[in-house]
Amino acid sequence: MKDSDNLEKMRHTLSHILAAAVQELYPTATFGIGPAIDTGFYYDIDFGKTKISDADLEKIEKKMRGIVSRKLPMEKRVVPKMEALNWARDHKQKYKIELIEDLPEGSEISFYDMGDLFTDLCKGPHVKDTGEVGAFKLIRVAGAYWRGDEKREMLTRIYGVAFATEAELDEYLKRQEEAKARDHRKLGKELDLFCFSDLVGAGLPLFTPRGTELRELMANYSLSLRGREGFKKVWTPHITKTDLYKTSGHYAKFGDELFMVHSQVNGEDFAMKPMNCPHHAQIFASRPRTYKEMPVRYMEATTDYRDEKTGELGGLSRVRSLTQDDSHVFCRNDQIKDEVKRLVAIVKELYSTMGMQKLRARLSYRSDEDKYLGDKALWEMAQSQIKQAAIDNGLDYFEQEGEAAFYGPKIDFMAEDAIGREHQLATIQLDFVQPERFGLEFTNAKGEKERPVMIHHATLGSIERFLSVFIEHTGGWFPFWCAPEQVRIVTVNNTVSKYVDEIKEILDGIVLDKPLKYNELRYTIDDSSDSLGKKIKRATDFKIPAVLVVGPKDAEEKVVSIRLRDKEEKVKLSKLATFLKDLK
Amino acid sequence: MKDSDNLEKMRHTLSHILAAAVQELYPTATFGIGPAIDTGFYYDIDFGKTKISDADLEKIEKKMRGIVSRKLPMEKRVVPKMEALNWARDHKQKYKIELIEDLPEGSEISFYDMGDLFTDLCKGPHVKDTGEVGAFKLIRVAGAYWRGDEKREMLTRIYGVAFATEAELDEYLKRQEEAKARDHRKLGKELDLFCFSDLVGAGLPLFTPRGTELRELMANYSLSLRGREGFKKVWTPHITKTDLYKTSGHYAKFGDELFMVHSQVNGEDFAMKPMNCPHHAQIFASRPRTYKEMPVRYMEATTDYRDEKTGELGGLSRVRSLTQDDSHVFCRNDQIKDEVKRLVAIVKELYSTMGMQKLRARLSYRSDEDKYLGDKALWEMAQSQIKQAAIDNGLDYFEQEGEAAFYGPKIDFMAEDAIGREHQLATIQLDFVQPERFGLEFTNAKGEKERPVMIHHATLGSIERFLSVFIEHTGGWFPFWCAPEQVRIVTVNNTVSKYVDEIKEILDGIVLDKPLKYNELRYTIDDSSDSLGKKIKRATDFKIPAVLVVGPKDAEEKVVSIRLRDKEEKVKLSKLATFLKDLK
Repeated sequence: MKDSDNLEKMRHTLSHILAAAVQELYPTATFGIGPAIDTGFYYDIDFGKTKISDADLEKIEKKMRGIVSRKLPMEKRVVPKMEALNWARDHKQKYKIELIEDLPEGSEISFYDMGDLFTDLCKGPHVKDTGEVGAFKLIRVAGAYWRGDEKREMLTRIYGVAFATEAELDEYLKRQEEAKARDHRKLGKELDLFCFSDLVGAGLPLFTPRGTELRELMANYSLSLRGREGFKKVWTPHITKTDLYKTSGHYAKFGDELFMVHSQVNGEDFAMKPMNCPHHAQIFASRPRTYKEMPVRYMEATTDYRDEKTGELGGLSRVRSLTQDDSHVFCRNDQIKDEVKRLVAIVKELYSTMGMQKLRARLSYRSDEDKYLGDKALWEMAQSQIKQAAIDNGLDYFEQEGEAAFYGPKIDFMAEDAIGREHQLATIQLDFVQPERFGLEFTNAKGEKERPVMIHHATLGSIERFLSVFIEHTGGWFPFWCAPEQVRIVTVNNTVSKYVDEIKEILDGIVLDKPLKYNELRYTIDDSSDSLGKKIKRATDFKIPAVLVVGPKDAEEKVVSIRLRDKEEKVKLSKLATFLKDLK
Repeated sequence: MKDSDNLEKMRHTLSHILAAAVQELYPTATFGIGPAIDTGFYYDIDFGKTKISDADLEKIEKKMRGIVSRKLPMEKRVVPKMEALNWARDHKQKYKIELIEDLPEGSEISFYDMGDLFTDLCKGPHVKDTGEVGAFKLIRVAGAYWRGDEKREMLTRIYGVAFATEAELDEYLKRQEEAKARDHRKLGKELDLFCFSDLVGAGLPLFTPRGTELRELMANYSLSLRGREGFKKVWTPHITKTDLYKTSGHYAKFGDELFMVHSQVNGEDFAMKPMNCPHHAQIFASRPRTYKEMPVRYMEATTDYRDEKTGELGGLSRVRSLTQDDSHVFCRNDQIKDEVKRLVAIVKELYSTMGMQKLRARLSYRSDEDKYLGDKALWEMAQSQIKQAAIDNGLDYFEQEGEAAFYGPKIDFMAEDAIGREHQLATIQLDFVQPERFGLEFTNAKGEKERPVMIHHATLGSIERFLSVFIEHTGGWFPFWCAPEQVRIVTVNNTVSKYVDEIKEILDGIVLDKPLKYNELRYTIDDSSDSLGKKIKRATDFKIPAVLVVGPKDAEEKVVSIRLRDKEEKVKLSKLATFLKDLK
């Protein structure tokens, strides 16, 4: 038996213990269902007119602990359907009645008895007795429609978390606490990075100056890595006639997610682009190409639009306006490996810069099914080239057959953040189908027409989603090079303005060269008449990497007191530029 | 009598001479109308089954010159309607019959007789005789529906140009020739700057790598000037709920021009943004503001979408996707002058950099009508501040009452291009209305809420339209700093690769600092096996500012032969970087 199987049993038993405790405290409560879930368990309960809130959880949890300490046996009992129904009717459990009625005639119906205390309709399995449930904690109350149907009764769902040991539970709760403190929606507001407007709409963030600085630095850095490798920027509009997607095949695929655009003037049908490949293919097709200029490499940081249910939108994790750091290589078959290798190296470099060195890659191949388009030999050749590129780059990879897109094999990258969560971000996808659909071609060395392969790649993925991850990964303490405000000068009093001018002159001359070239220092000055304490707090609240506190004594000694995140340093004015340039 | 009145008479008489010549050559031709126009004249003629093309113009023109030399008198004659109709019927002129029938009973109907040669229904006036028509030339044949109605007969329109003197005609034709050679649509293709795709749609250009380089340099330069003055970049999505425009008042104003966007998922109504001010106002409104942080200055190079009739779209002059180098200042009333002054100085600097120093400004004020919104005293104060800003900047300006937008006074800039055409590009507009509509406010020094003024400004205007002007202004010979490909190394033969490496090392180290900082040199190498002549022609066709021709002798002497647009120079390798950096 696997540990995870046992953990599921423990959690499942805990949902029964929760119900038993509720029954003792609220005798008229009726019960829906109570399964084990990913990190614990829940139970959906109808409390009638009684309102249950998070404040009631302590009382219920206490009752549960009492049941745990009694080590009541969990015993299965199989009964005929009629007997089950009678039990449910006797106990006025209307939801259980409905569940039993839905079971086919003659099926085996099982109950679990928790000693004499509590009985529930249940398939099991469970642990031996209520003493074997490990460590748990009730965490919150939510609303849930009976059977997920918004036309049915609204029940109260009580959530608990549960792990095999106290240590694991603590670890989980700590991480949750950590994640909450890092929540990018909260930090986005506190650090004044982005905002939403009811007039503009859900899922359509507006970026303030600080947030725009951050997103531009990310995009520019990402594109600079590809620029070094011969990618050229292109620019394409955000809409297109639907003809483009009818030709590419995306029209059917994107379905409802497409934002349809209507021309009132000409009655033409347009769509907002949900991706950029068909547009880039049109640029490739705009003039004849020869083998000499292959590979042709285009890149563009541009915003795509995909519609989502309003309820599913949250902060930057899921938006309707997603800016991709997108690129497309058009290459010969024999160039696939080198191109993929180049891109894999870029992914590794970028995530290493972002402090997310731990990277796993999934290589997705075709299976023997018929759904894959394109020549099978080409697929196999491409898959082996992708694998070789992964090996050559020393990637931590695993292979999955049958996970490829219908148009070509791919590599997806999973990056681990500072609190151990994995995020799927970068992707490299081969495409044998679009070049066919758009009739793309180049003249090969023999003077014949040949079809190129396309390689889709985004390093950050969507900049908005990447930022949601990056803000939480850093907790808002951005690396020095990309902090929207890198330095703030805070004056102790108004006698130091001349010395501040000297410092400013030094700061104006600082241009960082790594990881992004020509990155001029971004600083502000707080010489307001507020108290020093207030001014320092304000700077700390904004998580500014380096706060230069400047007083008369510093001016006299030609030094600067620098408050970093975790320490304070006194630096000679003559060393200030070097000191700041070396900050990570 | 004004010269222009006489010119119109000359042109009008020429249209009669054209008809007389046609009648002699094609006796069965029937005539529509033949007016004087802006640069000459035309006549719409029904040639029956005979096909007339540009090739026939020489013959017709020759016949016209014969009529001119005969100095035939142009004499007016007034007749009753019935007599006029009889004349038209006798001469089988069905279009004239229709025209006469449409005239009210009893009206005076006039004819013009050209000696004995030709008679036409006409109001006049005309010159005294056919010898007084100045200089002319027939230029082209086009189709035109009778009375502009596509359900009526298609006639043949013959166009002529005409001026008072041969010198003026030559000047005009030369300028036309020049404009044709500079046509940005032609150059856009030849220089591989942008393309269109039938699948994407009309008015939606796609920019190739070279064109993208150019547009980014323009946008970055434009924004860099404002960045220096404290403007901060923001980012806003390309769509919004229509609620935003209903609140701002743009919904009604933009009408049909709005691209409507439909969410299939939620049934919500969105629109593509035709301008950015309401979005920027939302960022301003996203948190409380105090007088200390005013003015708040936002800028964004972002693409707006405005619908146009397909027939009105052409190259980059008129597009549906227009990228504005847009900005908005939110300021106190007493800050208007300084802010406007700052922007005027930026406009002057940018157009001077672009070689379009000749700049006129129209200051548009309110009139006494009621249509202007906002406090009248505020208007007057603002108008005098704008005027002072124009004077302080030494602008060549003129004032127009009643030309302001309903929401505030403005300055429009007209820039003259290399062949003397004026283009309205930059604009500075004050806005008293949007801050009101969105309830924008800041806390003033007294702790009270106060309403800011908004100042809209775009320096280039729309980048696409600016490029259409700039490409024609430069004829595709872009200034060195912004040429997509600044330098091309062309090898004489394959013995010089080591020397080319030395040159590359120098080029890699060149970063221009003016007018845009951190502008790395863009160069390519043509070391193909093609002949030197072919390689040089290829580089010249692309109008590359500096072509470095490298042969064995250059390698030996450590020099580089540089072909510029208008001269050739031999430069020592040690002076190469300085030489290139100094190119204009």
